[in-house]
Amino acid sequence: MKIDINSDLGEGFGRWKMGDDEALMKLISSANIACGFHAGDAVIMTRMVEAAKENGVAIGAHCGLPDLLGFGRVPMDINPRDLQKHMLYQLGALSAIAKVGGYKVTHAGGHGAMGTMFAKNHEYVELMLDVFKAYDKDLIHATAPNGYAATYARKIGVRTVGKVFADRAYDDEGRLVNRRLPGAVITDLNEVVARVSQFLNDGTFTAQSGKRVKFDAQCILIHSDTPGAVDIARTVRETIEKGGGKIVPLTELAN
Amino acid sequence: MKIDINSDLGEGFGRWKMGDDEALMKLISSANIACGFHAGDAVIMTRMVEAAKENGVAIGAHCGLPDLLGFGRVPMDINPRDLQKHMLYQLGALSAIAKVGGYKVTHAGGHGAMGTMFAKNHEYVELMLDVFKAYDKDLIHATAPNGYAATYARKIGVRTVGKVFADRAYDDEGRLVNRRLPGAVITDLNEVVARVSQFLNDGTFTAQSGKRVKFDAQCILIHSDTPGAVDIARTVRETIEKGGGKIVPLTELAN
Amino acid sequence: MKIDINSDLGEGFGRWKMGDDEALMKLISSANIACGFHAGDAVIMTRMVEAAKENGVAIGAHCGLPDLLGFGRVPMDINPRDLQKHMLYQLGALSAIAKVGGYKVTHAGGHGAMGTMFAKNHEYVELMLDVFKAYDKDLIHATAPNGYAATYARKIGVRTVGKVFADRAYDDEGRLVNRRLPGAVITDLNEVVARVSQFLNDGTFTAQSGKRVKFDAQCILIHSDTPGAVDIARTVRETIEKGGGKIVPLTELAN
Amino acid sequence: MKIDINSDLGEGFGRWKMGDDEALMKLISSANIACGFHAGDAVIMTRMVEAAKENGVAIGAHCGLPDLLGFGRVPMDINPRDLQKHMLYQLGALSAIAKVGGYKVTHAGGHGAMGTMFAKNHEYVELMLDVFKAYDKDLIHATAPNGYAATYARKIGVRTVGKVFADRAYDDEGRLVNRRLPGAVITDLNEVVARVSQFLNDGTFTAQSGKRVKFDAQCILIHSDTPGAVDIARTVRETIEKGGGKIVPLTELAN
Repeated sequence: MKIDINSDLGEGFGRWKMGDDEALMKLISSANIACGFHAGDAVIMTRMVEAAKENGVAIGAHCGLPDLLGFGRVPMDINPRDLQKHMLYQLGALSAIAKVGGYKVTHAGGHGAMGTMFAKNHEYVELMLDVFKAYDKDLIHATAPNGYAATYARKIGVRTVGKVFADRAYDDEGRLVNRRLPGAVITDLNEVVARVSQFLNDGTFTAQSGKRVKFDAQCILIHSDTPGAVDIARTVRETIEKGGGKIVPLTELAN
Repeated sequence: MKIDINSDLGEGFGRWKMGDDEALMKLISSANIACGFHAGDAVIMTRMVEAAKENGVAIGAHCGLPDLLGFGRVPMDINPRDLQKHMLYQLGALSAIAKVGGYKVTHAGGHGAMGTMFAKNHEYVELMLDVFKAYDKDLIHATAPNGYAATYARKIGVRTVGKVFADRAYDDEGRLVNRRLPGAVITDLNEVVARVSQFLNDGTFTAQSGKRVKFDAQCILIHSDTPGAVDIARTVRETIEKGGGKIVPLTELAN
Repeated sequence: MKIDINSDLGEGFGRWKMGDDEALMKLISSANIACGFHAGDAVIMTRMVEAAKENGVAIGAHCGLPDLLGFGRVPMDINPRDLQKHMLYQLGALSAIAKVGGYKVTHAGGHGAMGTMFAKNHEYVELMLDVFKAYDKDLIHATAPNGYAATYARKIGVRTVGKVFADRAYDDEGRLVNRRLPGAVITDLNEVVARVSQFLNDGTFTAQSGKRVKFDAQCILIHSDTPGAVDIARTVRETIEKGGGKIVPLTELAN
Repeated sequence: MKIDINSDLGEGFGRWKMGDDEALMKLISSANIACGFHAGDAVIMTRMVEAAKENGVAIGAHCGLPDLLGFGRVPMDINPRDLQKHMLYQLGALSAIAKVGGYKVTHAGGHGAMGTMFAKNHEYVELMLDVFKAYDKDLIHATAPNGYAATYARKIGVRTVGKVFADRAYDDEGRLVNRRLPGAVITDLNEVVARVSQFLNDGTFTAQSGKRVKFDAQCILIHSDTPGAVDIARTVRETIEKGGGKIVPLTELAN
């Protein structure tokens, strides 16, 4: 079984740092790189592109809301056509940095509060995928396997890969449990081993209720700002390797 | 004689406007578009790309300092390698918007206080031209015909076009008179006619001292925020046409 | 009858301008000054304080969302306790500029999309008024006479003045008609005369349905970015003066 | 001998952190709090005010350049009269937060690249101190004992305290050795003990050449982003206490 280990990197700004980008880059196979709106700047983006290239990690544009103070995690009632343009802007910026660095952006997606906004208003999702496709018809979009983005991507012919979270609990419908609720963020390494092993065996995660929920996914994400993210990533990696799985970048998985 | 009429456009931000972009777009043949750092945002950039395409105006990335409050007109002692990355970021953002809009960025340059910074530190100039070339070897750089950028561009094989200013006075060495000095900004239309006519005739402008200074240039710039910019642009256009000159975009002029 | 003519001023940023602040300052009796978040900066704020002092215009802090790009007009799901702190920050910044300029901030309120946010979540309103009172117990809050802010202000002892809009249509419940709907923004000067005259006579505005709606208000606002704002302000002023009303700053009206 | 231990705190932004503010707040006697320009925001500022009050730490406004990306460490050729207004804005914002928190800003100064800018252009220094005094005649300014700010402060009657750096090397003229040069930043705790002990004994630090340089100072600063800052602060504290010194806030030291 082929699996991509994915993480959000480059989420510093200027002199500020967020996760341990350098350590994670050695453990993952694809990176979502912040593009200067919710986090990231051209200097950090360049460093991420160089490190990804060196480690054979596929890179994607992790497009954020225009809100540095809120780290893109505050839902905004922004005009969907404006947001579409802001996302293209970010994708183009990272693509240029990658091109000059002898590398290539192969996937793209939205960050933070966009999840909430997209669930309420599908116009955001459609405009985002439309513009990704218009910019580069081969761009991959990793997303919840049963969400609207997956449906619309298939409809317009954007390549997708199902994505699940190693460090977050699910409910019975396969949705993420809200970050603020107890047990939502998973940091216990034994639990990570158990969850990933089960997923490799039968494609399921056990929801908080105990129910097993099936996911059609090959991309496993670790949040770089989850406490112990590097250890979680290493554990995910080792669990996959011990289970006979092969770790490959998103580009080898997309349909 | 072929002449390009050039202007800095898209210098609003969010709900703010600067010059009369729509009117100028109908009078010029190439536009330098603000890319979100000193001014501009993805929504305005998209509007500029559409209007340029509609009017057959060539577009360039007008890369600014990361200083919205100062409109990029405050010299900053920023690390040259960082600035290089910020310029590439902006160029990429505009290029993506152009690509999706069915158009293409064909020139690029720096804005505002970069002129002062570049004169003091040639490393800025070299890194800028290096990265423009690395991103797109056919990009054109319009610049003062006798400056260091023209020299270095020739050295590394970047296409250039000499640029002069219709609305600014020169000194005996062919340098712009400082904006704050009397007579530095030219808004009298009769004077504009006289200056452009003379330039078409013999390639010279008369400096403030009365001396005629020769310029190897085919690009005439009008600042969109000079008072009466639209009338100046119309006057330049009519003067060129009456004088038998042909107005063409930068792309038809670069060496 | 005593009336305050009120307007939102200082809504430029850096080199950008919005309304005609100088002309309006001569026609109004109280100004809500942008404080650097949705618009405004320390240089513009200083100019506004000086002009207000010169014209005997009362000044208030017009606190905005942390969103320059959206001009504070994009509703954000920001933490109410965070927004409270951002509003206090802005109020303090303007107060310091006023103090050094030999003047004083005498009222305060929220800008733009806060209206929508406040209607949905009263916690925003309560925290705002709590912090205004904690900073200066004499601060005035001009607001819709029948809204929750007026109720809560009375409850905690914050001075209020009822506010109506000269340039906006109302519905039967005395709420503003959405900006995007036809007829929502009123720019016809004859209509302005008729509306203000009627209000002076019987305290009512005629809603779009034709129904007369009563307002317990003494503050009439003109948006500085409504087309023809200066003419509207002059018309409001003349209508009040002809009708025997007396134009006074908010400080002479608050209960 | 009375000594103030001082540090720059609250230098995060949004979700980003810089130093260990909480630990340092328990070891120092005065804090310079970032005010939202180079770092800091209203939420962090509020937290700093609360922690300072709880620990009896005096607070000052650490006013920065309008450059979040550069952390205020990039010299800018900003108009001195504009910078003066930006500094007052920041001082007022912190003062309001302190007032509502039942506390008070008792000192103020400039951050980062302002040191370089102030050395080149004394107009910056004069305008800064003028506006500090105009806002609050009792504000203290801690500064290099032999610099222009100390001289001008005495001239206009602003209270000052001489400031030295525990974690930075000096040259023979008592100036800081440039951060980028070897040995400029001191992190060895034994060296810190030796330096502070010597300073307590005879008021000198030994410059890199070996020469002893005298400082008329009672405020010792530790940079919160120097590696091991908490250990350095603890060491400074213990060294002072063992040497019989008394640690007091700036407010008990200013002349």
